Amino acid sequence: MRKKDILRRSRFDEDPDEAVHAFISSIEQDRKILEADIWVDRAHVLMLNRQGMISQADATAILGELDSISSLEWSDLLDGKYDDVHVLVESRIIKNLGEDIGGRLHTARSRNDEVVACVRIALREDLLDIIEDLLDLNQTLLDIAGKHIETIMPGYTHLQRAQTTTLAHHLLAHCQSIKRDVERLKSCFDRVNVNPLGAGALSSTSHPIDPGLTADLLAFDAVADNSMDAVASRDFLLEAIGDLSISGVGLSRMAEELVLWSTSEFGFIVLSDAYSFTSSIMPQKRNPDVAELSRGRISSVIGDMVSSLSICKGLPLSYHTDLQEATLHLWRATSTMRDVIRVLRGAISTMKVNEAAMADSAGKGFLWATDLADALVAEHGVPFRKAHSIVAELAKTLEDFGNPGEISRELHEASRKLGKTLEMDPRSISRVMDARKSVGRRTACGGPSPQTTRRSIKKSRKAADRALDWVRGKRCKIDAAKSRVRAMQDGQVG
Amino acid sequence: MRKKDILRRSRFDEDPDEAVHAFISSIEQDRKILEADIWVDRAHVLMLNRQGMISQADATAILGELDSISSLEWSDLLDGKYDDVHVLVESRIIKNLGEDIGGRLHTARSRNDEVVACVRIALREDLLDIIEDLLDLNQTLLDIAGKHIETIMPGYTHLQRAQTTTLAHHLLAHCQSIKRDVERLKSCFDRVNVNPLGAGALSSTSHPIDPGLTADLLAFDAVADNSMDAVASRDFLLEAIGDLSISGVGLSRMAEELVLWSTSEFGFIVLSDAYSFTSSIMPQKRNPDVAELSRGRISSVIGDMVSSLSICKGLPLSYHTDLQEATLHLWRATSTMRDVIRVLRGAISTMKVNEAAMADSAGKGFLWATDLADALVAEHGVPFRKAHSIVAELAKTLEDFGNPGEISRELHEASRKLGKTLEMDPRSISRVMDARKSVGRRTACGGPSPQTTRRSIKKSRKAADRALDWVRGKRCKIDAAKSRVRAMQDGQVG
Amino acid sequence: MRKKDILRRSRFDEDPDEAVHAFISSIEQDRKILEADIWVDRAHVLMLNRQGMISQADATAILGELDSISSLEWSDLLDGKYDDVHVLVESRIIKNLGEDIGGRLHTARSRNDEVVACVRIALREDLLDIIEDLLDLNQTLLDIAGKHIETIMPGYTHLQRAQTTTLAHHLLAHCQSIKRDVERLKSCFDRVNVNPLGAGALSSTSHPIDPGLTADLLAFDAVADNSMDAVASRDFLLEAIGDLSISGVGLSRMAEELVLWSTSEFGFIVLSDAYSFTSSIMPQKRNPDVAELSRGRISSVIGDMVSSLSICKGLPLSYHTDLQEATLHLWRATSTMRDVIRVLRGAISTMKVNEAAMADSAGKGFLWATDLADALVAEHGVPFRKAHSIVAELAKTLEDFGNPGEISRELHEASRKLGKTLEMDPRSISRVMDARKSVGRRTACGGPSPQTTRRSIKKSRKAADRALDWVRGKRCKIDAAKSRVRAMQDGQVG
Amino acid sequence: MRKKDILRRSRFDEDPDEAVHAFISSIEQDRKILEADIWVDRAHVLMLNRQGMISQADATAILGELDSISSLEWSDLLDGKYDDVHVLVESRIIKNLGEDIGGRLHTARSRNDEVVACVRIALREDLLDIIEDLLDLNQTLLDIAGKHIETIMPGYTHLQRAQTTTLAHHLLAHCQSIKRDVERLKSCFDRVNVNPLGAGALSSTSHPIDPGLTADLLAFDAVADNSMDAVASRDFLLEAIGDLSISGVGLSRMAEELVLWSTSEFGFIVLSDAYSFTSSIMPQKRNPDVAELSRGRISSVIGDMVSSLSICKGLPLSYHTDLQEATLHLWRATSTMRDVIRVLRGAISTMKVNEAAMADSAGKGFLWATDLADALVAEHGVPFRKAHSIVAELAKTLEDFGNPGEISRELHEASRKLGKTLEMDPRSISRVMDARKSVGRRTACGGPSPQTTRRSIKKSRKAADRALDWVRGKRCKIDAAKSRVRAMQDGQVG
Repeated sequence: MRKKDILRRSRFDEDPDEAVHAFISSIEQDRKILEADIWVDRAHVLMLNRQGMISQADATAILGELDSISSLEWSDLLDGKYDDVHVLVESRIIKNLGEDIGGRLHTARSRNDEVVACVRIALREDLLDIIEDLLDLNQTLLDIAGKHIETIMPGYTHLQRAQTTTLAHHLLAHCQSIKRDVERLKSCFDRVNVNPLGAGALSSTSHPIDPGLTADLLAFDAVADNSMDAVASRDFLLEAIGDLSISGVGLSRMAEELVLWSTSEFGFIVLSDAYSFTSSIMPQKRNPDVAELSRGRISSVIGDMVSSLSICKGLPLSYHTDLQEATLHLWRATSTMRDVIRVLRGAISTMKVNEAAMADSAGKGFLWATDLADALVAEHGVPFRKAHSIVAELAKTLEDFGNPGEISRELHEASRKLGKTLEMDPRSISRVMDARKSVGRRTACGGPSPQTTRRSIKKSRKAADRALDWVRGKRCKIDAAKSRVRAMQDGQVG
Repeated sequence: MRKKDILRRSRFDEDPDEAVHAFISSIEQDRKILEADIWVDRAHVLMLNRQGMISQADATAILGELDSISSLEWSDLLDGKYDDVHVLVESRIIKNLGEDIGGRLHTARSRNDEVVACVRIALREDLLDIIEDLLDLNQTLLDIAGKHIETIMPGYTHLQRAQTTTLAHHLLAHCQSIKRDVERLKSCFDRVNVNPLGAGALSSTSHPIDPGLTADLLAFDAVADNSMDAVASRDFLLEAIGDLSISGVGLSRMAEELVLWSTSEFGFIVLSDAYSFTSSIMPQKRNPDVAELSRGRISSVIGDMVSSLSICKGLPLSYHTDLQEATLHLWRATSTMRDVIRVLRGAISTMKVNEAAMADSAGKGFLWATDLADALVAEHGVPFRKAHSIVAELAKTLEDFGNPGEISRELHEASRKLGKTLEMDPRSISRVMDARKSVGRRTACGGPSPQTTRRSIKKSRKAADRALDWVRGKRCKIDAAKSRVRAMQDGQVG
Repeated sequence: MRKKDILRRSRFDEDPDEAVHAFISSIEQDRKILEADIWVDRAHVLMLNRQGMISQADATAILGELDSISSLEWSDLLDGKYDDVHVLVESRIIKNLGEDIGGRLHTARSRNDEVVACVRIALREDLLDIIEDLLDLNQTLLDIAGKHIETIMPGYTHLQRAQTTTLAHHLLAHCQSIKRDVERLKSCFDRVNVNPLGAGALSSTSHPIDPGLTADLLAFDAVADNSMDAVASRDFLLEAIGDLSISGVGLSRMAEELVLWSTSEFGFIVLSDAYSFTSSIMPQKRNPDVAELSRGRISSVIGDMVSSLSICKGLPLSYHTDLQEATLHLWRATSTMRDVIRVLRGAISTMKVNEAAMADSAGKGFLWATDLADALVAEHGVPFRKAHSIVAELAKTLEDFGNPGEISRELHEASRKLGKTLEMDPRSISRVMDARKSVGRRTACGGPSPQTTRRSIKKSRKAADRALDWVRGKRCKIDAAKSRVRAMQDGQVG
Repeated sequence: MRKKDILRRSRFDEDPDEAVHAFISSIEQDRKILEADIWVDRAHVLMLNRQGMISQADATAILGELDSISSLEWSDLLDGKYDDVHVLVESRIIKNLGEDIGGRLHTARSRNDEVVACVRIALREDLLDIIEDLLDLNQTLLDIAGKHIETIMPGYTHLQRAQTTTLAHHLLAHCQSIKRDVERLKSCFDRVNVNPLGAGALSSTSHPIDPGLTADLLAFDAVADNSMDAVASRDFLLEAIGDLSISGVGLSRMAEELVLWSTSEFGFIVLSDAYSFTSSIMPQKRNPDVAELSRGRISSVIGDMVSSLSICKGLPLSYHTDLQEATLHLWRATSTMRDVIRVLRGAISTMKVNEAAMADSAGKGFLWATDLADALVAEHGVPFRKAHSIVAELAKTLEDFGNPGEISRELHEASRKLGKTLEMDPRSISRVMDARKSVGRRTACGGPSPQTTRRSIKKSRKAADRALDWVRGKRCKIDAAKSRVRAMQDGQVG
């Protein structure tokens, strides 16, 4: 079989053995781009025909054969050993149509521009999918936030209870992060969706091709400006994996919280049975495997980023086979991210929130210390730094953080000790301690007050809607291009 | 000294020892944000005063003290041990003005929102600087390209001579890469330039602050939408380092070419004396240390990316001190990139191009093999795959790639052997072999033809001009904000 | 099917849906440890029986069922959905033997100790294989070195021709690197080959087990000292991937040389047809894909290292599902390394060395500059730094590096200019210039002189033989343990 | 100043400008190897003299000058701009002694072998220091463990309470990890401590040097076997950073536990005041900055590993300036690790253990579920998988995990429902539930039983003592070599 490899047959006397061929072949990972490859082939043939480079009859025959191929199962297509999907498809066409017809497919192009066209098409699809997945997750977070606008919980810094906040406020922080993830992926999309066809091996072609036409037929937004760059650069790929790593880090922080919140110690949530796993030996266990593994898989995306950067770094122009390995990491990263986003969404949408535990936790200790210091500033004119010291003194000496009377006395004592005697009656103290009131006061800069929260949810929903519209617009354009290919193929348009 | 630390004094009975303090202090890296910190303090005080939270007299005193601080040398400022620059500045103000005045500076804010405001301000400055540096490098590449539109050189794939191209075409590939780097950094800027002030520790503040005013005074384009996100998120930082890594990989590829091209084997360029280094033992050596070290330093930026991703990954919300370490990597990455871009530009702008060696190298071997196959397609109607085989046969058997007569005969032989006898006279062969003609024919998709190249250079210059205008616009806005702070401070505006 | 999952059935009311199950299941990657798992099960059952924890009849039945399982194809085993291979095997045994018998298999153990036992067994096998692969490659390098003890070539620093050396000397440098790789992997083996069985979930078991016996039956060299560490630690895995990354970097440097040396510019080697690939468009191309992809795949191993470090970093004790993802990277890294080592060996063993090109390259330019400076030191008593300057002057002014007469005159001139007039007659100059003589003089510290080279080859062979003996010893011990399991199972020993 | 650079003066007409020089100079990082460099110079001069290559008088003069240099402050030494410390030292010697004497120092060596000798010497010192630091930390952990052999706490898997264990058992898990870290670093030391002197630029030297003598004088354990490998390889450096990353991951897991355990939710420990930090706004906060930053800094070490791997990957032999950047990462990694180990030790040794909270936490919930299943197996002959199901049923239905009577009834019910009716009286249940008894039963494979723990502590102490002896042995050898240099210099030995 390999003996008759369409590329090697006249060039080499000897073929690689099985192990070497398996080593260099990208056929397994190319399954991901099969559909894109057929589409690219169709667009290329239609363009060649329109430009007068192959006859109508030859074009029709090849397009027909491409239809057959696209209807086959992967396992049926894989009837031998191929370097990649491009050789597979061309070989099949030559086998079925003869070289006089099939041998014209690869006119005026190289695998170098072909493969990167396919990668760009498959990647833009992944980007749209991932953006939608992120928006779905966002939707889930907003829905839950909407139900917990007044659910008091402790806010943490350094994993120490810091100030009172609400579950909605906390979840909306993640929505902000997702919003930026989506923005980044949209920018990335623009740099991905560029037509490299016509770049050939590296220095374009002398044939009278029309890259504008293939761009139209493949729904690319632009045409490459330099043919060497078109085949050699992979910064679009690095950007995609980079954006995914960054988004993944955000998701991983969410996953970490699911792990923490479902411990006995926090007890803030209970993951549903469908997202819980038990032990082979400890029958009582409810383990958050889904959250743990999400956290772990994000490390794999980080690894994909490192591998890809390290692959590309230091390669002189233009194409090198090393880049094939970078594509592998791209597909791993997009696939991992889709999985992680979806399972996290599932886990979050089905978890039970333990509002009592959250409130209880927020009520314990001294989360209103800042409120007290702020009250000393606002109501007693104490400089903040002094107020901070007075309350710090209190933090050190106070034994019961729930008794306004005692607090009032100790505050007097602490302030006196620090040279600024203050009186604050128990009722005022109670007001300061009140979690709901504290949250209600915090309106600035996206704080947790219910009214701010409602506004934030509305704003987040609008932004998500706009992003979804954008995705739909892109999908429309892609579908339209596919229809146009079909129409040209059917002779309905020229 | 530490005994009187303004934060610890009432809270703790014991202070960290020297080693522990040195471990946790960010003071060394904070030198980078000192200027930003003073600016943030000014804006904060002006806002507090406008909102009626501190008196005119107190505000004036603090602003005066900030002026003094900004006129001091770093070494004079560092009069003791401080956790960070924020504590340093506040401590100094309290020391000089007394706590009754100075103790009011930190009203309605936390270090959590303060530090990230400072990082954003310093980072946006770095981004603008790096964009300008990249545009300078781009300018240099365009200038050299402009002089070498017809300088023939071999184009490479797999580091094997592939097809003829020109030096201009090759350099313009790098310009495309830089253009995208700039686009990415511009997008990043938008996500960086957001005001987190007012977020407080994590859940905003109950004081009647005005984040819109501080945003104006600090030239931020927007105000944070969620206070927890504002202090906890660092995806803006990851995005910046990620964009720099990607840009760095492009530069590293350029550096690799400088190393290769200046070898005896390639001989395409000679680096100037000012960019060459010799050996301590081998007196003849001219080493391209600058290019090697650029390549090496990009690996450091990749490491900064990994460190930062790994730091942020899995941290629950909101702020953690781990994030301080991420900032360190940010400054390392921006500083490394500035250095690398500049030295590469210097090396490239002063290198001597050996046009003869490039032409000689392009003339050797069989770089016109594709041209021949394409001619068989275009002029003889041979299917490309067949033409490819015929020329491959030639590649295997031909001994002299420079003799049109012999080539004509061998082509006949090879085509006959493959069942498609072809005749091509030596004159036609000569035309195919002609490097200039080959390049001239390659016009599509940013190919190397002189006319395409001239158009590309013009287009690249325009894009660079637009980018530079953007930078200038941003700088204008920043300067205007500084002037407004000064004017408010001087009482000229309210 | 999942409804009756042996672990979940009584614990949960609901099962994960398809996507969630696919997400958390390790079954695909567990194929790698199936054999180890069966072995571990056998040893465990034999131990339970010996310790009186299950009856002879039950043990015999389970062991018989394990025999059946081990004779099945993977596709036949996978008759449903399982979390992992451990559940798969136990489920099958329970299905076939009933729970009264099969339900006793998991007595006194957990998946936590079971899985890490399996990983250690499969990894130690990979380590032995990789060491043998490295020794094979070493053998190939030594064989080629043996044929090129006097093959002159340029030695490079900074990719600039530096001093004359030989191909043997160059190849032996790689042998040194491989030698250390092997040492590291041997040390790693010792830390891998430890029995964690008996650690249970994390805190051992109250059953009267005998970890010493399972260690014997599984060829482990030691028994874990702390049960929590036994299930929680993965530093053995990180060490393995780390050692492979380091070894991979060495291989990547070799691969880079294959790429460089097979360029037209260097022309030092020609890769065989079986290790060469051509272009889909440029029929003349002979691309070193194998070397490029080797270089690229090493970046994947680096990524595996990063992923694994980042997965483990910051996990509190003890077991977390994140660790499952680290195992995935382990298998990827070992598999990649085996592939890379083998194809590189194939490429190197079949490449054609172009001795003439090497000699020609070494003869050009001024590679004997250090020899000249050294001669000025040794024969004329010139301080080295002065000699270096004189020769540097020569390097700057000399036009023909091949004419002893001219050199002699210019040397006189250069030395005079630098205040130390020297005379060296053309015959002495010729002697200095002679590549063979230069190489012959360089005997210290593993230099390229033929006699040193021969000694080095001999020494390297001996070290390799010792390492191979070590591997064989380990394999013997493993085989013996397998035999003992079989013998105990057959009742031949107790 | 640069105009007279001892290396460039005759070779180049132009010098690098300030920025370029700052870019390529390693002088700042070379401060780390100044002491090593002087030692290397001394050994080299003594060897040159012994081998008759420089006169006694010249040797004495140079050695005297080296003494002066070693007595200077770094700031005094830095009297100009130098590429590196080697040029600095040689330049100073030439300036003070004249070139006729000082110009002889660099005879028969290159910076390539010199720098790697210095790096190896400084690194071995760091390795010994780090091993001692780790052993100190180990000592601290053992001491605390010794006091908490019977301190009951929950053991966790998936951060869910799993089984009862003791604090000693938990801490001893970390000791195991440290033990392996030390083993790895010891192996690394052996590969670091090799003499590269004599390798010259890459291909040894023709001068009659004696590498064995310099090895003795510098306390190297062996002499390099191949001169090209000696200057080109950096796997010793990668191994060191790799080992540190792995060790760092272990420390980071410890740091994560300090963060978790000091939360209000866990409450297991209170960090001392000297290791606690507060907030600028929230006066009540006690933040574990030291633990957080330790965790964060380990990410920096991981980044150092990635940078170094990525720097070395794909460099052809032999030396490249890129490697200078790898050394920078080496020093960063060793320095970070020293800091992290020490502050963690301090934090751990001064923390207050809250035994009551640990016991309370272990007593809550159903940590004895496995004990109950095991009792059903051991006392009632139930197959483990069945017992697991019965107890799982209990876990789902039971409301009060502290009432033996109710448990007894529910167990009866659950077992009946699963077709295996069991009776277990409340007293037996109580015995199973007893945390101390549970721990006491767990003796196998390094379990938490007090007797096992005492044995483990003793074993760990012994291993630590042996490791410390090894360090002391190495330090003795190093000191002896220094004395021998001094003695030879003083003419006491030849």
